[in-house]
Amino acid sequence: MFCKCSSSPRLCLGSAMATSDVKLLGAWASPYVMRPRIALNIKSVSYEFLEETFESKSQLLLQSNPVHKKMPVLIHADKPICESLIIVQYIDEIWTNGPSILPSDPYDRAIARFWAAYIDDKWFPSIIGITRAQGEEAKAVATAVAIEQVSAGLVVLEEAFEKCSKGKGYFGGEQIGYVDIVLGSFLGWTRMTEKMNGVKLIDEAKTPGLVGWAERFCANNAVKEVMPETEKLEEIAKMIQAKFRAPPPK
Amino acid sequence: MFCKCSSSPRLCLGSAMATSDVKLLGAWASPYVMRPRIALNIKSVSYEFLEETFESKSQLLLQSNPVHKKMPVLIHADKPICESLIIVQYIDEIWTNGPSILPSDPYDRAIARFWAAYIDDKWFPSIIGITRAQGEEAKAVATAVAIEQVSAGLVVLEEAFEKCSKGKGYFGGEQIGYVDIVLGSFLGWTRMTEKMNGVKLIDEAKTPGLVGWAERFCANNAVKEVMPETEKLEEIAKMIQAKFRAPPPK
Repeated sequence: MFCKCSSSPRLCLGSAMATSDVKLLGAWASPYVMRPRIALNIKSVSYEFLEETFESKSQLLLQSNPVHKKMPVLIHADKPICESLIIVQYIDEIWTNGPSILPSDPYDRAIARFWAAYIDDKWFPSIIGITRAQGEEAKAVATAVAIEQVSAGLVVLEEAFEKCSKGKGYFGGEQIGYVDIVLGSFLGWTRMTEKMNGVKLIDEAKTPGLVGWAERFCANNAVKEVMPETEKLEEIAKMIQAKFRAPPPK
Repeated sequence: MFCKCSSSPRLCLGSAMATSDVKLLGAWASPYVMRPRIALNIKSVSYEFLEETFESKSQLLLQSNPVHKKMPVLIHADKPICESLIIVQYIDEIWTNGPSILPSDPYDRAIARFWAAYIDDKWFPSIIGITRAQGEEAKAVATAVAIEQVSAGLVVLEEAFEKCSKGKGYFGGEQIGYVDIVLGSFLGWTRMTEKMNGVKLIDEAKTPGLVGWAERFCANNAVKEVMPETEKLEEIAKMIQAKFRAPPPK
């Protein structure tokens, strides 16, 4: 049922089908690509994973997303759907016989969309700020500022978790939902950032709820096969840093 | 039925009700505030419009949106909903007996969400770039770059309009839908930008479909009462420019 290609096969099938009505284009290390993979797993939908790399993009990707030229792209019945949050909502609306990803109540849906936007637009850019810091001095300053921002954001999300989960295991209640997928897809990069900078971002003192949530999320059947290993993400992060540090070509 | 407070009353009621179950907090000049107003008009929902200004925010706004402290906020049955796109989706999901704002087909919904995100994240920031340009020399450069970006984006949106409208009047088909609201809410600022910079952004040569669409949109019953006058937006834009040009306080 679950696709096991979090390492690196160029193409794999979620099931033994020769061709699939559902194709996903993306790189295994991208948190945005993880999102539709988790959503498809939750819905028990088999899919063909057409792996992309960060360095070069396939013709199929460029044709399927001519406006942004970005991954992930879901191709369902030969029609492309772009942008990770939009794809996850599409999956939820198409495969309605599986567990629901967004809440059924309109107010709860609005709240879930609010936190998803907060995570993408406000919180995660701070983590990117740490990873991309250039040069030792600039890095020290950028790291300190970004760690402060990331930690403050996590305290906000801890409160959101308490309210949304209502004492159950996930933002979505007893099962993984929309906000779980959105925040959870960043856990690999968060752990890699913790390791590379010798800091603890999600910690018992300030965010005890999120500590337990992160453990549950990573151990979940829909997630564990697609969650990248911290060491592998570290390699990617070092490549990105080297690219940003390299002198401009002459 | 329609609320007529696009000018400046501090508080007005969409109907003759003394208190309302539906309150909207925001400034009349904000394109983001226009969105829920149009959506509520489409659904024929009476609401209380609690006007905010750009200069100072009410306690109710700060309490209702403690994370971003931004307008608009919809308060429905004493519960706040924030972020304009999320509010419009909420309105569509709550008042289901009115005309639909998002398409019913999941693929069409994904496409509508894609263009909404494109307009907000890629296209409109260029217009803001023109309005905020500081100093004469910087302004000339910034204006030229931003006009190029805005025009290129409009050509992309012209193609999207042709595909989405399928020869009908709106992105949403025969009626105003999600993408119409998102792009249409920026028409006032687009016209003001055209006037202040002596340029034509939406023009017959490059974007003939959007020219007709813009006229239909502004004349629509759900829109015309809340679409701000270009001259009034010009005053606001000059205030914003003056604020950015002012020397830092000593």
